[in-house]
Amino acid sequence: MVERVDGNGAGPPGHRPRTLLAMGEDVFRLQFTPPVMERLRQAAHLDDPLVISDFDAPEVRARLADCEVLLTSWGCPPITREVLDAAPQLRAIIHAAGSVRAQVPPEAFDRGLLVTTAAAVNAVPVAEYTLAMILACGKRVPFLARDARTHRSDWSYLDGYRPLTNRGRTVCVLGWSRVGRLIGRMLAPFEIDLLVVDPHADPADVAAAGGRLTSREEAFPRCDVLSLHAPLLPTTRGMIDAAALALLPDGATLINTARGALVDTPALERECRTGRLYAVLDVTEPEPLPDSSVLYSLDNVVITPHVAGSLDSETERMSMAALDELDRYRTGRPPLDPITGATFGVTA
Amino acid sequence: MVERVDGNGAGPPGHRPRTLLAMGEDVFRLQFTPPVMERLRQAAHLDDPLVISDFDAPEVRARLADCEVLLTSWGCPPITREVLDAAPQLRAIIHAAGSVRAQVPPEAFDRGLLVTTAAAVNAVPVAEYTLAMILACGKRVPFLARDARTHRSDWSYLDGYRPLTNRGRTVCVLGWSRVGRLIGRMLAPFEIDLLVVDPHADPADVAAAGGRLTSREEAFPRCDVLSLHAPLLPTTRGMIDAAALALLPDGATLINTARGALVDTPALERECRTGRLYAVLDVTEPEPLPDSSVLYSLDNVVITPHVAGSLDSETERMSMAALDELDRYRTGRPPLDPITGATFGVTA
Repeated sequence: MVERVDGNGAGPPGHRPRTLLAMGEDVFRLQFTPPVMERLRQAAHLDDPLVISDFDAPEVRARLADCEVLLTSWGCPPITREVLDAAPQLRAIIHAAGSVRAQVPPEAFDRGLLVTTAAAVNAVPVAEYTLAMILACGKRVPFLARDARTHRSDWSYLDGYRPLTNRGRTVCVLGWSRVGRLIGRMLAPFEIDLLVVDPHADPADVAAAGGRLTSREEAFPRCDVLSLHAPLLPTTRGMIDAAALALLPDGATLINTARGALVDTPALERECRTGRLYAVLDVTEPEPLPDSSVLYSLDNVVITPHVAGSLDSETERMSMAALDELDRYRTGRPPLDPITGATFGVTA
Repeated sequence: MVERVDGNGAGPPGHRPRTLLAMGEDVFRLQFTPPVMERLRQAAHLDDPLVISDFDAPEVRARLADCEVLLTSWGCPPITREVLDAAPQLRAIIHAAGSVRAQVPPEAFDRGLLVTTAAAVNAVPVAEYTLAMILACGKRVPFLARDARTHRSDWSYLDGYRPLTNRGRTVCVLGWSRVGRLIGRMLAPFEIDLLVVDPHADPADVAAAGGRLTSREEAFPRCDVLSLHAPLLPTTRGMIDAAALALLPDGATLINTARGALVDTPALERECRTGRLYAVLDVTEPEPLPDSSVLYSLDNVVITPHVAGSLDSETERMSMAALDELDRYRTGRPPLDPITGATFGVTA
């Protein structure tokens, strides 16, 4: 069901644009493996040094002058108005990672630049992590595994966790984003009810994925799992506050693989300290949590160090997706995943 | 992708056979919920007491005399040759759970009885648990979550776990059983390679599921996860011994949701004690492990108290599947999941 990136090393014939790679050196080594580089060299005109991570260096300014495509990833410095002024030939910013907000200024859209993101494939590992934790938490696996270490052969601790089931569970996906939609697709084979809360989602689109678009007030009291997949915006910061958490039923699990600051951390601490809610937190605010945080020691809380997103071989999926966009650009086909001025700041 | 049990309460018209329910009282209360009982009453002629758990009581012997269908589940006492002799009208044993080996004697097949199992739907939660742990272990979630509790904001523990990825992982399913096949289907959407080891499997069937049937010697050294789904038979007892474990590469994860005795526990203890392998054990031999077992305290081992199979609302899925078989029997249609003398003892 998950779209696979075309792994064919031979790009289509066409124009080979002058392309500058702007990202961290370590990111480059991780994402631009030999098969990726083979494809890139066929698709783009490159120069030495291959990768730059500072737009202000004089030799970089000179190369910006005839640069047509910026291929970016994590560690790319902000593409300021001055950088855009120095790059009059620039036509496309192709980002081989998720959010472009830290790199791309609104001016890029005013100038009519094509901006694309690999967020669709960056969503894959986040959705996989979330699916794994939804199914694991239905059976309380992380918590039973802790109890097994202390209670050992005395299985009476099991009684505190009933029911232990995934059948008939209700999952609320907050944010019908790329990750949210992918989780909807991944949940379809299971006997799990999907509720979606998102002010911008299309009810028909949610229904086509087997879910139901509803309000926070209706969904939260009915869900066994609340999984966050909203972007961090002024309107979403701290949206999971004491009032939102109070709507969740006893024993519900909050999963956060999106942004820590969506959650009011002190409010979550209060709800977890009483044992009323479970939490699986791959992201936190602040990140990492200070050593003094009670969340580290609570038996009903799982914390992982921001690993749900693309790591290691998963990042190559994003560079391959970026090369797909580059091929489409240089052969005159429409982009797969463009960011426009209208969607910038809402979804990306 | 997972078949859903028909939840329609109204059975088709047809013969209503005299049916005796034989199972534990607690199992009955769990599985035979009001919607199940409504369907059952339309399909079968029942008598009081509704449920029996002892075939030797005189009043039960009398009811056996005109019993046509035995509807059984966990806690059903062995259906001995004497029980069969006392039930000359018996035509079908419909089991609302997985394995029938503890209840059904080989004589049942000699007498031409229909024997069916709900193993196909009992496989669902086992496969769900396994999928969850495959995806979680690709990112080392259970182990990172432990380290987070002790190392807190010092994320340097991450370095010991690279790579943290699910893309390109290889999973070896040992046993192309109902659970094994379901896991194959569930893994299809992910960029995970599936190898299957099973002396009885059809290579074309495995290939149709996106996997490759191969030998233990080829599969074990290449897999990131070895997941056990073989039945416990004289030929499979202890098959995961020191030699088998030695074939696995460093950092591989053994998942056992099948039967503890498939694994040579002391050999696994030795491999886990060195930290060379990870293990996720929902079943163990003995079960539970004695309090003295080193496996409880190792950071690279996850133990859960035999919760992967059908529990709570998941057990209703099996009673609904049994009623599907009952409907097929009483309306003259072929069974969905019969056990024959030929397959008895090999797969069930």
